[in-house]
Amino acid sequence: MEPSNKSPSARPPTIAWIGEADGHLELLDQRSLPERVEILRLDTVEGVWSAIQTLAVRGAPAIGCAAAYGMVIAARRADSMPKLKAAAEYLKSSRPTAVNLMWAVDRVMSTIKEPGTPAVIRALEESRRIHAEDAAMCDAIGRHGAPLIHAGDGILTHCNAGRLATGGSGTALAIVYEARRRGVPFKVYADETRPLLQGARLTAWELMDAGIDATLICDSMAAMLMAQKKIRLVIVGADRIAANGDTANKIGTYSLAIAAAAHGVTFAVAAPSSTFDLSLADGSGIPIEERDPAEITAGFGRVTAPPGVKVFNPAFDLTPARLIHSIVTERGIITPVNTQTVRATLNSQ
Amino acid sequence: MEPSNKSPSARPPTIAWIGEADGHLELLDQRSLPERVEILRLDTVEGVWSAIQTLAVRGAPAIGCAAAYGMVIAARRADSMPKLKAAAEYLKSSRPTAVNLMWAVDRVMSTIKEPGTPAVIRALEESRRIHAEDAAMCDAIGRHGAPLIHAGDGILTHCNAGRLATGGSGTALAIVYEARRRGVPFKVYADETRPLLQGARLTAWELMDAGIDATLICDSMAAMLMAQKKIRLVIVGADRIAANGDTANKIGTYSLAIAAAAHGVTFAVAAPSSTFDLSLADGSGIPIEERDPAEITAGFGRVTAPPGVKVFNPAFDLTPARLIHSIVTERGIITPVNTQTVRATLNSQ
Repeated sequence: MEPSNKSPSARPPTIAWIGEADGHLELLDQRSLPERVEILRLDTVEGVWSAIQTLAVRGAPAIGCAAAYGMVIAARRADSMPKLKAAAEYLKSSRPTAVNLMWAVDRVMSTIKEPGTPAVIRALEESRRIHAEDAAMCDAIGRHGAPLIHAGDGILTHCNAGRLATGGSGTALAIVYEARRRGVPFKVYADETRPLLQGARLTAWELMDAGIDATLICDSMAAMLMAQKKIRLVIVGADRIAANGDTANKIGTYSLAIAAAAHGVTFAVAAPSSTFDLSLADGSGIPIEERDPAEITAGFGRVTAPPGVKVFNPAFDLTPARLIHSIVTERGIITPVNTQTVRATLNSQ
Repeated sequence: MEPSNKSPSARPPTIAWIGEADGHLELLDQRSLPERVEILRLDTVEGVWSAIQTLAVRGAPAIGCAAAYGMVIAARRADSMPKLKAAAEYLKSSRPTAVNLMWAVDRVMSTIKEPGTPAVIRALEESRRIHAEDAAMCDAIGRHGAPLIHAGDGILTHCNAGRLATGGSGTALAIVYEARRRGVPFKVYADETRPLLQGARLTAWELMDAGIDATLICDSMAAMLMAQKKIRLVIVGADRIAANGDTANKIGTYSLAIAAAAHGVTFAVAAPSSTFDLSLADGSGIPIEERDPAEITAGFGRVTAPPGVKVFNPAFDLTPARLIHSIVTERGIITPVNTQTVRATLNSQ
């Protein structure tokens, strides 16, 4: 199983392992986007740790793939199992809340019983499998979701749920890329996504890089575009989805869902089945992380708020299932969205 | 008639004429906020022109007051009516779309028949009248609107419709200041207001300066706060209001109005009666200015979007009257909002 060829761009991939067991990891350095396209060449565990920790690579699936390849480097260097286990724990500490990171590192570790060249080869095989499975998952989401896009559509997306966040073509944007592959004409509006501007820095970049008609807006402009009938479909990713379909995603998603409902605009979520947390009956149990006030008060090189001002900076918000037209997964499309249809789709295959 | 004493703060006023006919104009330099409080001391027409043009002073009423005082300086210097008229045209050119600017300059000009010391004195008297009338208008809006605020309220505001935008206590924020004067406890959330961040730079500053409990949020976070029942009232200003109450205001206002409606939150507009354009039956005829893409792509001193990206950057959006609970003017409060109630209130007094 090889990583998908359906990359939306022939230009630098988000994540690539170059060579064989003695090779190295290359990452498209997302800290330099959108101003410069720079490739990080990594052949130390410390380098991979730092790349994850400083957001050179971000997005749960992409972090998982990068960390898996990091374990190949760790296996190559470790001369004992305790040392390899220490390296695994070290890699996991780069983003302590990233579940995919833990899962990918553990999965590679489980293939290794003792250090040595065979272990390195097995680690690389497992990492490539993780990467290829991720790309296949993206492509499946793209295939299931593509019919949501009609010729002439205006499509709005939020944050970055694209190829820069995964080992493949993305989640929300996989649908966009697949519709384009099928020759459907459309245009995309990208919310800049305050406070960290992933939409402006990453989504606008990757859409332009893929030759897609993209227009950047501030988050607060989406409702006006809907009133002007310039948006027919909203597609966003998800950070966590409860059993009934309530969805936690980047702050601002809920506001879009309300505006979409008020204008009869279709609101869709795209996410792998691993995003569902079936232990939660609904979204009320999803914890909402609050982040550093400086992201809002001094985010881009300048202080733009009074010193000492109180700030509310939630990373996510919760969109209730009743506002969601469909959830697109690699196992199929869930619509309407409720506990029964979620269960039915996740249990399929 | 003197400018109101109900300033929300004993600290530097937005606009002040210091001394008599031989005095000078002082402006709180809004370009330096929120990092530094700096007072501009102006005694040349060129200085006043530049202060308006570079947004050291902004907000239609505040610009009008500053330009009026600029005419005092012009009258002091001009030795012929053609020279004074040229100075008036020059001042008007500092913000060519600001209707209040034209109105204030013309009003001062109309008091002058020939140059000389009596003309300077008359210009100063007229400028002080314009300033005092503006402050009285703000205070009247505050009085009419104060009952909208209940003890314990969370109040959301957008952009800056405060004392920094007027010659008095503001429009939307005049209501907040008056409620505070009456001893009503509440807290205010200030939208940062992308792209130019007037909420973060100006509103958060002036609320803190006045000792009001203020919390800064990104525009996209307002709906989540409403879902958490932390907002009971939204109060915003207006740039132009049609005869039926449809309101053009800073981009992002419409999105708030939709979210307010979805959560049963009261949505109020505060504006002087001069904001109404009764020649427009509804808002569909209000032109929406589109502004420089760089405000979105490079607004914080750093490039945050790909070079050459398409951008949609409307300065305003349109909120239909059906989403507006009330419009607070200096002549009274309009509620419900429709062509009949707008006409009745504007015709009162």
